[in-house]
Amino acid sequence: MRTLRLHALAVFAAVSGGFAQVPYQRIVGADGNPNTWVTYSGNYQAQRFSQLAQIHRRNVAQLKPAWVYQMRNPGIVETSPIVADGIMYITEPPSTATALDLHTGRPLWTYTPNIPQDVIIIGSPPVNRGVAILDNTVFYGTVHCHLIALDAKSGIVRWDTVVDDNKKGYYITAAPLAIDGKIIIGVSGAETGIRGFVDAYDAKTGKRLWRTWTVPGPGEPGSESWGGQSWQHGGGSTWVTGSYDPDLHLVYWGTGNPAPDWNDDTRPGDNLYTCSLLAMDPETGKIKWHFQFTPHDVHDWDATEVPILFDAEVKGRRRKVVSMANRNGFYYVLDRQTGEFLTAAPYVKQTWADGLDAKGRPFPRREADPKVEGTLVYPAIAGGANWWSPSYSPRTGLFYQATREMAGVYFKGDADYKEGTAYAGGGGETKNGDEAYGAVRAFEATSGKLRWEFKLLTPPLTGLLSTAGGLVFGGAEEGNFYALDAETGKALWDLQLGGAVRSPPVSFTIDGKQQVAVTAGTSLFVFGLP
Amino acid sequence: MRTLRLHALAVFAAVSGGFAQVPYQRIVGADGNPNTWVTYSGNYQAQRFSQLAQIHRRNVAQLKPAWVYQMRNPGIVETSPIVADGIMYITEPPSTATALDLHTGRPLWTYTPNIPQDVIIIGSPPVNRGVAILDNTVFYGTVHCHLIALDAKSGIVRWDTVVDDNKKGYYITAAPLAIDGKIIIGVSGAETGIRGFVDAYDAKTGKRLWRTWTVPGPGEPGSESWGGQSWQHGGGSTWVTGSYDPDLHLVYWGTGNPAPDWNDDTRPGDNLYTCSLLAMDPETGKIKWHFQFTPHDVHDWDATEVPILFDAEVKGRRRKVVSMANRNGFYYVLDRQTGEFLTAAPYVKQTWADGLDAKGRPFPRREADPKVEGTLVYPAIAGGANWWSPSYSPRTGLFYQATREMAGVYFKGDADYKEGTAYAGGGGETKNGDEAYGAVRAFEATSGKLRWEFKLLTPPLTGLLSTAGGLVFGGAEEGNFYALDAETGKALWDLQLGGAVRSPPVSFTIDGKQQVAVTAGTSLFVFGLP
Repeated sequence: MRTLRLHALAVFAAVSGGFAQVPYQRIVGADGNPNTWVTYSGNYQAQRFSQLAQIHRRNVAQLKPAWVYQMRNPGIVETSPIVADGIMYITEPPSTATALDLHTGRPLWTYTPNIPQDVIIIGSPPVNRGVAILDNTVFYGTVHCHLIALDAKSGIVRWDTVVDDNKKGYYITAAPLAIDGKIIIGVSGAETGIRGFVDAYDAKTGKRLWRTWTVPGPGEPGSESWGGQSWQHGGGSTWVTGSYDPDLHLVYWGTGNPAPDWNDDTRPGDNLYTCSLLAMDPETGKIKWHFQFTPHDVHDWDATEVPILFDAEVKGRRRKVVSMANRNGFYYVLDRQTGEFLTAAPYVKQTWADGLDAKGRPFPRREADPKVEGTLVYPAIAGGANWWSPSYSPRTGLFYQATREMAGVYFKGDADYKEGTAYAGGGGETKNGDEAYGAVRAFEATSGKLRWEFKLLTPPLTGLLSTAGGLVFGGAEEGNFYALDAETGKALWDLQLGGAVRSPPVSFTIDGKQQVAVTAGTSLFVFGLP
Repeated sequence: MRTLRLHALAVFAAVSGGFAQVPYQRIVGADGNPNTWVTYSGNYQAQRFSQLAQIHRRNVAQLKPAWVYQMRNPGIVETSPIVADGIMYITEPPSTATALDLHTGRPLWTYTPNIPQDVIIIGSPPVNRGVAILDNTVFYGTVHCHLIALDAKSGIVRWDTVVDDNKKGYYITAAPLAIDGKIIIGVSGAETGIRGFVDAYDAKTGKRLWRTWTVPGPGEPGSESWGGQSWQHGGGSTWVTGSYDPDLHLVYWGTGNPAPDWNDDTRPGDNLYTCSLLAMDPETGKIKWHFQFTPHDVHDWDATEVPILFDAEVKGRRRKVVSMANRNGFYYVLDRQTGEFLTAAPYVKQTWADGLDAKGRPFPRREADPKVEGTLVYPAIAGGANWWSPSYSPRTGLFYQATREMAGVYFKGDADYKEGTAYAGGGGETKNGDEAYGAVRAFEATSGKLRWEFKLLTPPLTGLLSTAGGLVFGGAEEGNFYALDAETGKALWDLQLGGAVRSPPVSFTIDGKQQVAVTAGTSLFVFGLP
């Protein structure tokens, strides 16, 4: 004579009074409301740190699932959930957006656009890293290179804008960044010889407000760093969400490798602004400063890693800095007002450079360049780090990064541009022998000095979350999700989730109780205390 | 400086000393060793009852996952795990067998045969209900109608026997039943006009020992119940695992509908032994007795539901009985020595029969027969119950069944036999209106009298498990897995698993601690106390 409480329609009715309304100022003040998770990395500083401390070192072993959501399609899941006002918004493979009731995990709505059968995706699996939210709308990019705005309540399309032509190889994997009235989005496709850019769109209308090319055209600053016509297909993808400083009013966004990746014959020069960090004026997209980590890259050293903003004393005075654990194996700290190089240190084994000069420019070892017969180099093709989110804890002052210790063989090959086809000029093979391993590493954020590491048998692809409860959450390729002591790296809890963890955890509350969510395989798990 | 404990190779080494060795006598004595789950329904009596009582009414709310396993392929999962000696054996869609380390959930081996691209599966999705185990070998059937024996330690094929020709429409969804030296298996395919059978194979060699046709040939007993040549494609599938009485030395196996399902023009007569329970001598396959629940069925009233054996006082004296909640909507109790009908009662709304006579033969309402324009009948096409396992608790004396309260429209259509194509002669549509619902029901096992029910919003497809801890575990189409009080039906715990529960739970121990496992969607969850 009893009835299960949980029913899609009933649930929908129960939450219909309080749909997500996330004005810009609420995102600016994200740290002050840790009950929600309103932007890709948790706050505009991209720290992926939760101010919640209900789950802590002494009770984390009691964690248990509150609910599980199984996605309907196979694929690799890298989504970082957005949580606001009782709803969780995720993306599912390949380009579906879904709203889940936060209390029950039951879907409220789901939206899948018409993806052409012949969609072009070269250089990456068709992953998606999540949505952005602003006011009553959620935004996400698709593999056919549309930016789509959906009503947060109903999932109904508000607008659907073609960012660029997928037939040229453009596609989107990054989650957008929502700032005041604008949606900023980057693109993938360097392996098809795109010319990269960062775009901003009007949140209300979907109209493009500006485009900043990551490869300058003839006559523009930086154009001298490209030989011949190589700029036309120069790469410089922008496929991971950047960060934002509302006070300095600067958007920070990383750029990827030049094209072709491993054959540099046609592109003499530094190839600006590939493998760089750009600081842009969000009103115009104007590049205020740039820092190129890897001039004239030949190893696919995308600098698309998440740039984390924090304030700390570096080189004798308190500064506003931006830091990045770069795919090339070095951890960098820059002054985020000026772009000045402050310090760097290798965080994994690397053999492609003989260190850096005083301005942070590497001394590349030319014998490490790709060759037709292959060249063994550390790190391997996926880098020391990559798209998977790091975390910075203002409590510990540590930068947490899932790192890969692994060698790769880099091959140089032919590169002939043909629209919509691979334009990589070689490739890489991992040397995944017994020596390869991974580790969650905690660096002093101001120096990159190693504080502790937690070893993983397989080089990981997991994002990390640190919390005010003194914890770091992360996953493993083997399917474990674990909590570490943020001060020592000691493992405090883990659970086998049955699929590789390749997305970053987030934290929020349900009815005032702290939860941690992460995906593993094609399922999403929400954990809380009993 | 720490390393995750869980690694496939390490795990393999750790358990390599104790591989599954499950002699016949261990299955006979299954109730005496509830640490394992060594046959489809837990014991040969098919009671799906665990003698474990560590998890009970007062602590079940603390249940949490010990591990999760995510299957690699999409599909509908109905597998019932086998657990022995530190390993769990499951099947995955469509015909993969997998061994999982019981401590960690990590795969030890997996085996997938070559399934032809043009495999014929009509009448059911390509599900699989699990493996059987005997000695050091596991056994399972496939969609291309092979019976395969795998080394339990390595997954290496011991033998692979073609049970019958898939081109004729034969396929296997049932888990085999392993008895002394023999593997008994049933087949699916009535909707393709197969002639059904139950087979026994030599466990060591894979050689067929006997075949018992469920449709007699000319001159054999029962052949008078088929008009003309209709016996040749008479159906009578055997697609759910039966039960076994080692003392009486009888195997009990249910049989499915006659073919064509809904057009009876070509098959006047009772159509023996379709829609029946067969009691067979396991040495020869000889039918010792039969009971036909639905003579001359026209509604697809498969009697393939799990037949549960128990001993109780019925009709004035203590008896060995067999009971079944039949797809046709009636719950039956028979004397399992003689096949004598003892009692029956409807357990869902049914409108196809005006009750039963003293021998249990129904009075069918001819106006309920399928018509070209459709006929509204209760229950709907999936029946009041079906393949999903019931449970019997010797502690409570109750029979637990997930039931469907739903009407269907039955259509009569043409039926022309053509090898390997549908031969159903019509079909059914559910009337899934607001009135449809489901319930876990507890009957007095000796009478079918309702003791309690736990309502479900959607008609369920879940198996049930009862335990000595006074609990009944089951699931919901909405993805909930729940524990009910076995005496009252009161809900004590539930968790949203993100996918429909369509398989039956099992229970066992890990390091002496009781666990409950069930699948939901395409994941398997193992639960224990903290």
